[in-house]
Amino acid sequence: MPLKDMQSQNDHRRIEIDKVGVKGIRYPIVVLDKINRVQNTVATINMYVSLPHHFKGTHMSRFIEVLNAYRHGISTRNIAEILIKIKEKLRSESAHIEISFPFFIEKQAPVTGASSLMEYTCHLVGSHREKLDLIVGVEVPVTTLCPCSREISNYGAHNQRSLVRVQGRFKKFFWIEDLIALIESCAVNEIYPLLKRPDEKFVTEKAYDNPMFVEDIVRSVASRLDLDSNVTWYMIESENYESIHNHSAYALVEKQ
Amino acid sequence: MPLKDMQSQNDHRRIEIDKVGVKGIRYPIVVLDKINRVQNTVATINMYVSLPHHFKGTHMSRFIEVLNAYRHGISTRNIAEILIKIKEKLRSESAHIEISFPFFIEKQAPVTGASSLMEYTCHLVGSHREKLDLIVGVEVPVTTLCPCSREISNYGAHNQRSLVRVQGRFKKFFWIEDLIALIESCAVNEIYPLLKRPDEKFVTEKAYDNPMFVEDIVRSVASRLDLDSNVTWYMIESENYESIHNHSAYALVEKQ
Amino acid sequence: MPLKDMQSQNDHRRIEIDKVGVKGIRYPIVVLDKINRVQNTVATINMYVSLPHHFKGTHMSRFIEVLNAYRHGISTRNIAEILIKIKEKLRSESAHIEISFPFFIEKQAPVTGASSLMEYTCHLVGSHREKLDLIVGVEVPVTTLCPCSREISNYGAHNQRSLVRVQGRFKKFFWIEDLIALIESCAVNEIYPLLKRPDEKFVTEKAYDNPMFVEDIVRSVASRLDLDSNVTWYMIESENYESIHNHSAYALVEKQ
Amino acid sequence: MPLKDMQSQNDHRRIEIDKVGVKGIRYPIVVLDKINRVQNTVATINMYVSLPHHFKGTHMSRFIEVLNAYRHGISTRNIAEILIKIKEKLRSESAHIEISFPFFIEKQAPVTGASSLMEYTCHLVGSHREKLDLIVGVEVPVTTLCPCSREISNYGAHNQRSLVRVQGRFKKFFWIEDLIALIESCAVNEIYPLLKRPDEKFVTEKAYDNPMFVEDIVRSVASRLDLDSNVTWYMIESENYESIHNHSAYALVEKQ
Repeated sequence: MPLKDMQSQNDHRRIEIDKVGVKGIRYPIVVLDKINRVQNTVATINMYVSLPHHFKGTHMSRFIEVLNAYRHGISTRNIAEILIKIKEKLRSESAHIEISFPFFIEKQAPVTGASSLMEYTCHLVGSHREKLDLIVGVEVPVTTLCPCSREISNYGAHNQRSLVRVQGRFKKFFWIEDLIALIESCAVNEIYPLLKRPDEKFVTEKAYDNPMFVEDIVRSVASRLDLDSNVTWYMIESENYESIHNHSAYALVEKQ
Repeated sequence: MPLKDMQSQNDHRRIEIDKVGVKGIRYPIVVLDKINRVQNTVATINMYVSLPHHFKGTHMSRFIEVLNAYRHGISTRNIAEILIKIKEKLRSESAHIEISFPFFIEKQAPVTGASSLMEYTCHLVGSHREKLDLIVGVEVPVTTLCPCSREISNYGAHNQRSLVRVQGRFKKFFWIEDLIALIESCAVNEIYPLLKRPDEKFVTEKAYDNPMFVEDIVRSVASRLDLDSNVTWYMIESENYESIHNHSAYALVEKQ
Repeated sequence: MPLKDMQSQNDHRRIEIDKVGVKGIRYPIVVLDKINRVQNTVATINMYVSLPHHFKGTHMSRFIEVLNAYRHGISTRNIAEILIKIKEKLRSESAHIEISFPFFIEKQAPVTGASSLMEYTCHLVGSHREKLDLIVGVEVPVTTLCPCSREISNYGAHNQRSLVRVQGRFKKFFWIEDLIALIESCAVNEIYPLLKRPDEKFVTEKAYDNPMFVEDIVRSVASRLDLDSNVTWYMIESENYESIHNHSAYALVEKQ
Repeated sequence: MPLKDMQSQNDHRRIEIDKVGVKGIRYPIVVLDKINRVQNTVATINMYVSLPHHFKGTHMSRFIEVLNAYRHGISTRNIAEILIKIKEKLRSESAHIEISFPFFIEKQAPVTGASSLMEYTCHLVGSHREKLDLIVGVEVPVTTLCPCSREISNYGAHNQRSLVRVQGRFKKFFWIEDLIALIESCAVNEIYPLLKRPDEKFVTEKAYDNPMFVEDIVRSVASRLDLDSNVTWYMIESENYESIHNHSAYALVEKQ
């Protein structure tokens, strides 16, 4: 005798559920890499479907089965395919997936060229009802230096690590490495895991030469993305972990 | 000679900033308490304004000055006043505030009546352009027990701690204690810091008598809020920290 | 018929348990304050006892009962009393408590005197077998500025927020406010929630005048504590959230 | 003219620093895998050396250079070699490394055999002065079910996810997969990412048949490790995320 399928029973409250599924799954995945073709990483994943009002529950194990089928190659190119597969297996009208993972890019120090691997956090957030809606996000740590502090002080200027988060919708495929490079080119200074003394001199002076408010960073990135016809929407945030306060300065600009 | 005001200078990029301000401020505040009149707590606070495209920067220190003026009494009743004050001091057209804090309610164990203090995380999220838009949120930990596991097993049923998050918009003042009580009445079981043996027997049997999927919890809360004419919008989430998995089951329902 | 007391049954594996109890309790407490006599805060608390090898389990609810009895006044002065009470109620030979809480001190900005509240995280870690062993800890955010960067660069110097953590054993009572002041006096610069422009000029120039490696900070605090005969042991750590890297520089020195 | 080496200058405070270095580096590494030979993962790494009292500072960039040289193969077998290399490059008498990483093992569901990948957090903590001192740690999520709740209730029993952390010193090489299997065999129940209905029935009944206090889990693991002559020291912790409370039950036992 088969075990009773409670989830497929009827529900009479007439309330459709927008999202139901599994949250916080940790799984090893393989993603695309512009230089090395692919990159192994470890993702944190949420997978949801909508549930019509007449069904009591969803079948959670099927999400993991879909993840197993795709974990060896996940990219912006097959998110639609993954979401359609979830809709089929879960018999749902819409599916939603959120994938976050650390992504590493080899960087050369600006003077000595010393090489190291820099971590960026990436996000893929996809929804599919009739068609795919995909948001790609990256978090890029940079250095910022305060123009006010530089202007009013006889010497020095407070500076700090900042985190620039950019989310966007794009018309066609692009390399996440190119988006990261664009963001870094807008900041006061890139950040590197490995700097020798001549590099440290270079980044210190470059930061002092190029002061920016938290407002300037988000405007600078926005100006660049406004010029890119591949970008249909963006949200840009910068959080500066102020060296003179115990809180952050923050700015957000969203393309309407 | 006064120090130069860099922030008030012109900016020529023609990009309005949606939110700019201070993030992650930790501050002691006093909030309303239905039983004890007021309660001391420690909040995490974000305060933002919009910045017209022609201004270069905002004056961050003024946010803290407003916070100083109001920290001895913050509630849903004066969020509008606080936001209007921010708009005035920062000379901005819109202001936004996010306040999160632990809130404690004294609870009696269900059989012995043994007393202890239960923590709930509360959120106030207010925006003001022409008028106030206020969202009130609470996070309520509860017990859940799986109906499928109970049905198919000869004995026992997996159960776990879950976190129910409810955000809502309301027409008029209400006590956050009443919203928490409503949510707890919808769950399999309330959670208590202090339970004696007769209480433990009671909550164990009550959970087994009252199994609920993660879908059931959000539907149950939604049904109750649908009946309350004071509620104009809600978003209800439940995250079940599954005892048989290392990830969560999750459901979300939003009032359209 | 009374409910069976499983915890008091015998265990035959002959393994004494070093610590057993409750972890991660969130509770509102009242602590001592040098200026205002007392301060309300919200603590995260762990409470443990040792368990002799012949007992099967401990009675977890009794920890919360002790906490209820003392939450209106917890300080270094009565930790011994609290631990003795735990030993009595739990019938154990040793007890252990860990209490962490945010503590706020009013600070005046260095030039304008503008006032705001600065958060410090405090820790009380007490053990009692025959007598009390008490460790007091504080976490103090400060500004640091790199001497190497300043020396090799034609202008500017990278600086950042750092967190100095000091734990100590002390012969007799002291005010935690005094320990915090000592640590702040050793750093490149204190941190303030609220700074006006003349203050920002002051702290920028002071930081540039007073560069310190992460090694210098821990040595500076150690030198000061070595002079204090009330201090019988210390561990000093500094973590600098480097503005030019995405990782921290870190140093630790422990009094032997 | 070479840039001045500030770090190599003299310091006159006569305070030796126990640990100084880099903290919180995120780096992709390759570790050993019993089934698949190697596994790609992303580590969080701290690397420190001791600093004699007469040196002002250490050279932080050299840590990253060592990490670059070894990241393609890190295991308990070459931690000593890595630490000796750090000592050489940093010209220090002792070196210390802490490496934490997610590690995935393929698991079959207990009845259907459905396959999925389960995450365990692993830690390697090595110090080297004259010789290597190495601690290996794993964190294993399991299910626990309360014996008291089962005994006193007419039906049901509260159960929850728990995290068992084991740290040990070992005489010779072992597979971390074997240590994880030993820990899972001591728990009420293993945890799986993917369970079908017959598996859910199995784990529900197995948990009810096999209740354990938090004290029982640590004693059970301790009994097993006491029988293994390869283990010279251990510390075993279990944290049960109680389904009836908002805090954890916790136990710790350490081999003397």
